[in-house]
Amino acid sequence: MLNDPTDADLQRITSIVGEKNVVGGDALAPYLVEPRDQWQGTAAIVAKPGATVEVADLLRFCSERRVAVVPISGGTGLVGGQTKPDGPLPILLSLERMDRLRAVLPDDGALIAEAGCILADIKQAADDVNRLFPLSLASEGTCRIGGNLATNAGGVQVLRYGNARDLVLDIEAVLADGTVMEGTRTLRKDNMGLDLRNLLIGSEGALGVITAASLKLFPKPGETVTAMVTVPDPHSGLMLLHAVKDRLGDEITAFELIHRCGIDFLRRFNNGFSDPLPGDPEWRVLIEVIGPKDGGLSALFENAISDLFAEGVATDGVIASSEAQRQAMWWMRETIPEANRKVGAIVSTDISLPMSSLSRFIDAGFRTIAAIDPSLVINCFGHVGDGNLHYNVFPAIGRTRGEYDNLRVEVKERIHELVHEMNGSVSAEHGVGRLKIDDLAKYGDPGCLAAMRAIKRALDPAGILNPGAVIPA
Amino acid sequence: MLNDPTDADLQRITSIVGEKNVVGGDALAPYLVEPRDQWQGTAAIVAKPGATVEVADLLRFCSERRVAVVPISGGTGLVGGQTKPDGPLPILLSLERMDRLRAVLPDDGALIAEAGCILADIKQAADDVNRLFPLSLASEGTCRIGGNLATNAGGVQVLRYGNARDLVLDIEAVLADGTVMEGTRTLRKDNMGLDLRNLLIGSEGALGVITAASLKLFPKPGETVTAMVTVPDPHSGLMLLHAVKDRLGDEITAFELIHRCGIDFLRRFNNGFSDPLPGDPEWRVLIEVIGPKDGGLSALFENAISDLFAEGVATDGVIASSEAQRQAMWWMRETIPEANRKVGAIVSTDISLPMSSLSRFIDAGFRTIAAIDPSLVINCFGHVGDGNLHYNVFPAIGRTRGEYDNLRVEVKERIHELVHEMNGSVSAEHGVGRLKIDDLAKYGDPGCLAAMRAIKRALDPAGILNPGAVIPA
Repeated sequence: MLNDPTDADLQRITSIVGEKNVVGGDALAPYLVEPRDQWQGTAAIVAKPGATVEVADLLRFCSERRVAVVPISGGTGLVGGQTKPDGPLPILLSLERMDRLRAVLPDDGALIAEAGCILADIKQAADDVNRLFPLSLASEGTCRIGGNLATNAGGVQVLRYGNARDLVLDIEAVLADGTVMEGTRTLRKDNMGLDLRNLLIGSEGALGVITAASLKLFPKPGETVTAMVTVPDPHSGLMLLHAVKDRLGDEITAFELIHRCGIDFLRRFNNGFSDPLPGDPEWRVLIEVIGPKDGGLSALFENAISDLFAEGVATDGVIASSEAQRQAMWWMRETIPEANRKVGAIVSTDISLPMSSLSRFIDAGFRTIAAIDPSLVINCFGHVGDGNLHYNVFPAIGRTRGEYDNLRVEVKERIHELVHEMNGSVSAEHGVGRLKIDDLAKYGDPGCLAAMRAIKRALDPAGILNPGAVIPA
Repeated sequence: MLNDPTDADLQRITSIVGEKNVVGGDALAPYLVEPRDQWQGTAAIVAKPGATVEVADLLRFCSERRVAVVPISGGTGLVGGQTKPDGPLPILLSLERMDRLRAVLPDDGALIAEAGCILADIKQAADDVNRLFPLSLASEGTCRIGGNLATNAGGVQVLRYGNARDLVLDIEAVLADGTVMEGTRTLRKDNMGLDLRNLLIGSEGALGVITAASLKLFPKPGETVTAMVTVPDPHSGLMLLHAVKDRLGDEITAFELIHRCGIDFLRRFNNGFSDPLPGDPEWRVLIEVIGPKDGGLSALFENAISDLFAEGVATDGVIASSEAQRQAMWWMRETIPEANRKVGAIVSTDISLPMSSLSRFIDAGFRTIAAIDPSLVINCFGHVGDGNLHYNVFPAIGRTRGEYDNLRVEVKERIHELVHEMNGSVSAEHGVGRLKIDDLAKYGDPGCLAAMRAIKRALDPAGILNPGAVIPA
């Protein structure tokens, strides 16, 4: 069992990280909240180590003393993994001071970043040497790479470049007992024993604390074409995706489905917002494709989709003719989550489905939700190129989410059941955290759950790391 | 400690898989050898389960009885992972009967294959639905996907598509105690707890037995350009690689460096072999790039490298003008390993280095080997686009490898030390197996080794799975 830290424990931890790197009392408040306000965190202190060796000393001590440690990165996580609302008081381990780029190595196609580096800074450092680090999230100005990796973040470029784990060459991490796993090599192929890198990535702080990573850099695209296309329905959107893949190959970097509801939400909070597409369409897709400079990408793209216009699979479309237009299209997509928060969702989901089941799921989902309460509003949007939807349910205009409190559990469960029946996942890119730990226990494969628990016990026998998150008891 | 199986144990195992699916006596012989003839395996029997449930029953029983199990797939592994030369007699668990394609799902971009499927059959099944499964190895007509995944195989398309692990969406596997981890979903994003998929991939049969996998399919390239280019030295070869990446982006699917020595070996065994490049160059690269149909790829490629000819970075080159020419170029690359075996290497290595250290390593390696014995012949070739070299050492013409027996250990150790000093890996794509277990103990990070051992104990407490391979005691 875990213990509240004693005053002597806190003194020892303070001596490890240095007095000025400990936060307590009222100054704790900003560390105890999370973006969706579902949990109020608790903590004895926030400790901010400045080096891997301090992380190791702190974890070794907390293991000995059986004191809980909750790692915290940019604090932008959407599943409560960065908060511990109850039970013995934890130490919050903030990586914010470990924000050094240890090396930028364009010839190796790599960059070595400490866990506390802000994602946008990493992207900029890559850009400065004419390379691309493709991980792209709405929160990239605030989130930190350690958290991105601990949660295996997704985002809008997964279609071409993969999830966060696919962008990592090596990981430096500290286990619960203070063991440091060195790992900041830049190799593309390395089969020296078990793959611990991917085990730590996505473990949400429950197996160890990622302190640094060697990240993959990519060549910058020579040319990018961005378009917004009206489609009659999601099924047509997917036909469009397949057609572009068949003609252009695997060089689609983004393929986002957007329902009119998201555009309506944007209009509510953004005066003067102007839609590049006419006719206020119910469904649209945002597509981005890349290719070499002087490769005639625009013409290839237009050819690829022209037949679909003739067939009625696409009914209207605009190709961005300037960087400003391109950014305006992306602003629409990336501002929907913020508008969602302002409206206030009854239920937010983060689900993925086999590509061939997506449009069937969307149809069935609308019917399912309407059957619960026809006044419910669904904002369905997301990275459908990866089979990933944010299928979020809102109150009717003029009503508050409080009025639907009694439906919240049913709405969530019906959506998740539908996803599970269709061989989908109820945790696509945000992680499990505290929000979905019951879902994992319910929908996860029993054999996989048994293996997860065995690994957790092996690497964190005292159970100090992020207790209550990720791994069902 | 492990036990030899008793007659009663063998009867029980026979009853699990069926009498006709057990091999014993003289018929064992072909299962006890490996391609490089470094180990003579041992086995009580070969058991060939026909379904995942039989694998589970067999492993559960062997865990209870503490009987060793060595999984065997196509038997093409180059590090002895499929053989157990000494100690208690193992059961060889052959997946060869589990060779069913459970589903081919072009709309999901996925294919579900049982572990015993031959790699070439999977590639053909993908091709039949106008998709690509890019894993490409010299042994693809014989190796089986279970072994490819258990060893995280590399090959010639890693540059664009990644290692075997990057081609997998989900894994079905059986743990040592018979626990089945279900997993044949086709999702691109799924963060339901710890990543067990990548832990099993590359675990070389020491953590569990992979019984099936959901594999990623890709669009087929619209156009492919294949070229062989003469370069003055490896450094120029890498400049060529960077120049092509800068101009064409990340669409290089292969970039292979070949030294004249490999061509000499080919000539010895292949009458009438004709070199597409004139002048018998010391160094050449084989490059393949892909792009969309009608995208003018040939012209783009020629433009990309034309400046390099002017600068003397490339001195000659041929672009394949037909599929036959393309295949002739690939035949050269893919037949070098066979020629190597006929010549008989003193030391074969499978190493990777940071891209920026590759040419420095090659230079230093030549000096190091010459200092040991100037008559030694080095065939240096490989997937330099991934930083992966097969840096193999041979006897002088007219001498046998037996004459160099006393140098074997020193040659290997000096190469591996050089690799380690340069932050490289001595196990790039072939795995650890039995060949490199001492290297892993010597060069592996102690923290990572401790974690590997803890995970092994957690998932296979009796230590029945592939004892002596992969994980140093």
